Amino acid sequence: YETIQEDFLKYAHLPAMTKDHYRVDIGSNIEFIEEIPSAVLHGAEGIGLYRTEFIYINRDQLPTEEEHFAHYHQVVGVEGLRWSTIRTFDLGGDKFTSDPKLAKEMNPQLGLRAIRFCLKEVEQFKVQLRAIIRASAYGKTRIMFPMISGIEEIREAKRIFNDVMRDLIEEDIPVGRDIEIGVMIEVPSAGIVADELAKEVDFFSIGTNDLIQYVLAIDRINERVGYLYEPLHPAVLRLIQQIVSAGHRNGIRVEMCGEMAGEPLYALILLGLELDELSMNPLAIPRMKKIIQNSTLKESRELLDKVLILHSATEIRDYVEHYMRQRFPDEFPENGP
Amino acid sequence: YETIQEDFLKYAHLPAMTKDHYRVDIGSNIEFIEEIPSAVLHGAEGIGLYRTEFIYINRDQLPTEEEHFAHYHQVVGVEGLRWSTIRTFDLGGDKFTSDPKLAKEMNPQLGLRAIRFCLKEVEQFKVQLRAIIRASAYGKTRIMFPMISGIEEIREAKRIFNDVMRDLIEEDIPVGRDIEIGVMIEVPSAGIVADELAKEVDFFSIGTNDLIQYVLAIDRINERVGYLYEPLHPAVLRLIQQIVSAGHRNGIRVEMCGEMAGEPLYALILLGLELDELSMNPLAIPRMKKIIQNSTLKESRELLDKVLILHSATEIRDYVEHYMRQRFPDEFPENGP
Ligand SMILES: [Mg+2]
Ligand SMILES: [Mg+2]
Repeated sequence: YETIQEDFLKYAHLPAMTKDHYRVDIGSNIEFIEEIPSAVLHGAEGIGLYRTEFIYINRDQLPTEEEHFAHYHQVVGVEGLRWSTIRTFDLGGDKFTSDPKLAKEMNPQLGLRAIRFCLKEVEQFKVQLRAIIRASAYGKTRIMFPMISGIEEIREAKRIFNDVMRDLIEEDIPVGRDIEIGVMIEVPSAGIVADELAKEVDFFSIGTNDLIQYVLAIDRINERVGYLYEPLHPAVLRLIQQIVSAGHRNGIRVEMCGEMAGEPLYALILLGLELDELSMNPLAIPRMKKIIQNSTLKESRELLDKVLILHSATEIRDYVEHYMRQRFPDEFPENGP
Repeated sequence: YETIQEDFLKYAHLPAMTKDHYRVDIGSNIEFIEEIPSAVLHGAEGIGLYRTEFIYINRDQLPTEEEHFAHYHQVVGVEGLRWSTIRTFDLGGDKFTSDPKLAKEMNPQLGLRAIRFCLKEVEQFKVQLRAIIRASAYGKTRIMFPMISGIEEIREAKRIFNDVMRDLIEEDIPVGRDIEIGVMIEVPSAGIVADELAKEVDFFSIGTNDLIQYVLAIDRINERVGYLYEPLHPAVLRLIQQIVSAGHRNGIRVEMCGEMAGEPLYALILLGLELDELSMNPLAIPRMKKIIQNSTLKESRELLDKVLILHSATEIRDYVEHYMRQRFPDEFPENGP
């Protein structure tokens, strides 16, 4: 524990910059305002994923614009944080209300959720967008839409966003003028057409938890198939590489906010993929920064190139684990996790 | 109806060959032996997908090897059919038995099904494989494994297949010596690593129903999101093109057996994708053959190239519908479906 504390002090508040000067922004995934001090303490440079579902759940009535605003206002413009990325509502309709017409779905993961639900319940979606845009007057705000599957959905979401923005301006309500709009890339189709989506937005945020589930067609909370969940599956790495490349070719930033982004074992793979931001649980930040600070982009690219020519997920995992144990023996002891 | 009969006689029993001499094999999807005469009558040249799930369902005990064999024996070597492609068990474990330990899953489409289940219940899988391999002594047999997500699974399935084959040979039981082994490409990861999978098998069969669902992260039988199901989504077309290309670069045949393969509106798109076989409902065959016989590969490639540079599924659908109505006004009347 002492060692951890020592590392913590040494690495957490320096940038995640490699020895050959490649810098990755480090964000924090949070759900509650109360987590912000911990994020700052552990070295987050921004909020990379602020989940807003909790505002809706365990209540009888839909939240008002003022309730939304009260939360978002506290998330943007926090001293010491450079940005806040707010994700719009990302659950199925059953989380909004106990309305029986929102019947249980057979495969809720493949159902009416996230942006699909919001594009259907536009008035409720607008309430959230108004609050986010109002909050943007108080600090650097990014907004991102979950579960986008193609260009029609992001265009429609942007159209609604622009309507709300115009309404607020007409009402003389202060708004931020530099809100960035992004899409989460977590539906496989979005990854495959990332070159088209990149022309529509300011950034991508790769949601690896869902992306991996859909790419491999598994529900990872189902313990019978959890063994198939594999961030190092060659299909996952190839698709991420294609997404980053599509983003960069179109001049936009590409972030990652799934659990994969906070796993130290993958640090060099993530560097090699040239992600611009990694957003993770606050507690994961110091160790990830430490590894990045002791790596080079050059070796990371070489490692990625090497594993991308391997044939199976098993071979890739073995190779990465072996490499990381050799390279960072203190971080990944041979008999370690 | 008279016109349909006339077309039927004229086109159904000629090959699906374009005017510039590109030939597509036409298979039939069947579930019951009783459908075979209809498949032959409507112009099927082989069985492209024989579903075997019905052998397991609505019964108390698992089917024996002899029961399996009795079915498969009738499917292979049918006069007038050049091949029979048998798909191994493709459902979740709940279809095998009413065993309560096979609990209901939250997202069964993302659960323990198809090859995942078979690789876990190896003894039961071997019973089916023995029967298929025995049947292969009586006619051209292809076997394909559903829901393969990566190279480990196909290698494991092949290893079990080879064990069963060796056992049968040791027991002096007649077996076919030219069984072809294929994978269904229906999990997105399989499509993305198709170049690796192609080195392991004799053919691919693209299962578009599931592939489209997983690529778009929708359950198409869920009416709330069925509107998102779109075979002409650019991500779907790109991925199929990549799968065909990976197969052909590695010298293997690429088939399609999802509903998309039997939709006349997509005939030129499917030709442009250069699929080697289309397998469909018997009743869909005559019309599909007619359109193919009146098309050219050249125009099909041009159409595909044209739609692949469009930006959205909506634009692609509009373009294809307009093109097909102009090109085949009798088949796709302006006020038609
Ligand atoms: Mg997600
Ligand atoms: Mg399927």
